[in-house]
Amino acid sequence: MLNFNFCAPTYFEFGKGTEAQAGPLVKRFGGTKILLHYGGGSVKKSGLLDTVVASLRESGLEFVELGGAVPNPVDSKVYEGIELCRKEAVDFVLAVGGGSAIDSAKAIAAGAVYDGDFWDFFQGKGVEKALPVGVILTIAAAGSEGSVNSVITKESTNEKRGCGGEVLRPVFAILNPALTQTLPPYQTAAGSTDIMVHVIERYFSNTKEVEITDRLCEAVLKTIITETPRVIENPDNYEARANIMWAGMVAHNNLCGVGREQDWVSHGMEHELSAFYGATHGAGLAVICPAWLKFVSRKNPGKVVQFAVRVWDCDMNFEHPELTAAEGIERFENFLRKIGMPSSIKEFGAKEEDIPKLARHIGSVSETEKNFGGYVKLDLGDVEAIYKLAY
Amino acid sequence: MLNFNFCAPTYFEFGKGTEAQAGPLVKRFGGTKILLHYGGGSVKKSGLLDTVVASLRESGLEFVELGGAVPNPVDSKVYEGIELCRKEAVDFVLAVGGGSAIDSAKAIAAGAVYDGDFWDFFQGKGVEKALPVGVILTIAAAGSEGSVNSVITKESTNEKRGCGGEVLRPVFAILNPALTQTLPPYQTAAGSTDIMVHVIERYFSNTKEVEITDRLCEAVLKTIITETPRVIENPDNYEARANIMWAGMVAHNNLCGVGREQDWVSHGMEHELSAFYGATHGAGLAVICPAWLKFVSRKNPGKVVQFAVRVWDCDMNFEHPELTAAEGIERFENFLRKIGMPSSIKEFGAKEEDIPKLARHIGSVSETEKNFGGYVKLDLGDVEAIYKLAY
Repeated sequence: MLNFNFCAPTYFEFGKGTEAQAGPLVKRFGGTKILLHYGGGSVKKSGLLDTVVASLRESGLEFVELGGAVPNPVDSKVYEGIELCRKEAVDFVLAVGGGSAIDSAKAIAAGAVYDGDFWDFFQGKGVEKALPVGVILTIAAAGSEGSVNSVITKESTNEKRGCGGEVLRPVFAILNPALTQTLPPYQTAAGSTDIMVHVIERYFSNTKEVEITDRLCEAVLKTIITETPRVIENPDNYEARANIMWAGMVAHNNLCGVGREQDWVSHGMEHELSAFYGATHGAGLAVICPAWLKFVSRKNPGKVVQFAVRVWDCDMNFEHPELTAAEGIERFENFLRKIGMPSSIKEFGAKEEDIPKLARHIGSVSETEKNFGGYVKLDLGDVEAIYKLAY
Repeated sequence: MLNFNFCAPTYFEFGKGTEAQAGPLVKRFGGTKILLHYGGGSVKKSGLLDTVVASLRESGLEFVELGGAVPNPVDSKVYEGIELCRKEAVDFVLAVGGGSAIDSAKAIAAGAVYDGDFWDFFQGKGVEKALPVGVILTIAAAGSEGSVNSVITKESTNEKRGCGGEVLRPVFAILNPALTQTLPPYQTAAGSTDIMVHVIERYFSNTKEVEITDRLCEAVLKTIITETPRVIENPDNYEARANIMWAGMVAHNNLCGVGREQDWVSHGMEHELSAFYGATHGAGLAVICPAWLKFVSRKNPGKVVQFAVRVWDCDMNFEHPELTAAEGIERFENFLRKIGMPSSIKEFGAKEEDIPKLARHIGSVSETEKNFGGYVKLDLGDVEAIYKLAY
């Protein structure tokens, strides 16, 4: 186990009816003038926004609204939010929605108190200061409600990039599983896939002797495997929704990732699919991650075998562990198909001749042309090979 | 799953050499005049106290020392600490040691800023204010480094009682697994048992549909089962020590217990053994917990069967699940014996005729004569029966 530090101070209010706590919680965490940031019309249609607005008013809080955060949130909306925060002297950003609204809110919160272009933070500059961010979550997926991360797409160049910093971790998050019951099955399944891959990117590590974090990773994965088919079959299953929602937070606040090297290749490769074809992030991961597993299991099978046995309950083949690994990957793929996820990048509109371009774009964006990946180091030829396996 | 809130903001510095961060961390969390509280001579002999003192001095911090925290820490030491804090205008309490030093430090921190008898907090009064507490941990066991709890024994009446409050959660904890390498096997094994039972008291719940917390509980238990025999065999095994130490924190910061009823019967019954016979807490639990499992498995077998299958890898006997439950308890007992834990309360000096007295004392202390336990409700006759099973 490697030395590490860990601090996850977000306050979680979890369960039925908790969105009515929005006002009191904003007040408790020092907000007086709020930017209320959300996505499309669903939070309006469902009445959630009305509940939140009523709660803010009851607590005597002023607020301005900014809707229109889109999936794979974009820099133009962030600039708009920053300007609004400055003009209205906002001191607290409240996101109502999923990972997109939250990530957009985090970028706005950092940019509003920065004397420069917020995009600097997405090009490696450390984030030292930000307005406090609160969250009312409407989909279990990104884990942004408990994480330090934000991912924004720069529209002019199609760059989807991340930044991280402790000041971006939400001060509070309201998680009501009932709010996720109206999600379409595709979004639900893509969310569960995202949760699984957040764990997988931490699980596949060359750091030895990390039994506790391995076991915690496996706990989250098994929960998602058990509970997701239940909500696909019955979207109103509150209990299964609740287990997925809490698992989604545990998957990404880094409890599962401390003390070990991590490997974020599947996310890196998926970001290209979102940027170029508008793929839903979790659906993109459902195609990339199994392809990546097939590729790395040839070069470094050890952890793939453990994944097969412990997560997918495969019988260990002691003579031919590579068959166990293959069986595990196959069960993962079957699971993804069962919950309605795609199995080829063709389904997003990708053409075979696009593959070199996708790989080159990763090389230029990540500036890691010759040093991509952790569990297995990849060059651009390897990245192309993985995209081909995903084709 | 029940509604819940969760917030665990402790900052953890984990790994080799981290005790040298004591000074900078105290400073970062606002301390200027420190009460340095520890137990016996081992932290002096090992040189740990010198390292901590040097770090405090380098950071320009003033401090006063209070040694002598004993296992099952006592009220007299707490009164002494409170007086010292007031006299010296202490604004930060730093505990160096295990659960005893930490629990004692927490009680001192609460009492020092309270205009009354600190024992009020251990009789049900809420703790609203306390000096900040920092921790340098020397044994993986109590989980007090990440928890809101403190347990103190009132010497005059032999009452061992707990109190809890968010302000008692340490602001930082330094966890260096190497510091635990000098522990005798018995203390190491008792620590691992304590960790397991912290999880078990949360695991055995009548709350349905708590897959994520069940799985997290099982992850911690399996880690302790795998790693403890390795450190009993080789006390210098840093990696196994590291896994146990982090598991000990996860076991008790309540991540494993949210959204579900909990059942703290084994702790309640063990406290009597510590109070009357001076039993090491974890060793007492090693006797009580399996006896309790035997008793409850007759009345409410469901979760015991799951415990047997998922934690102890028992084959499920679908025709006779009670045999599966029994097999799981037997494997637990064999494990405890293998790591050197006792199997009868006789080993602490208890006599059969003491049993009614122990049970009555629980009744009077807990004021729950007719309402003890959660997974299975117990009356005093049941408590006696469990002590008899443990005899």
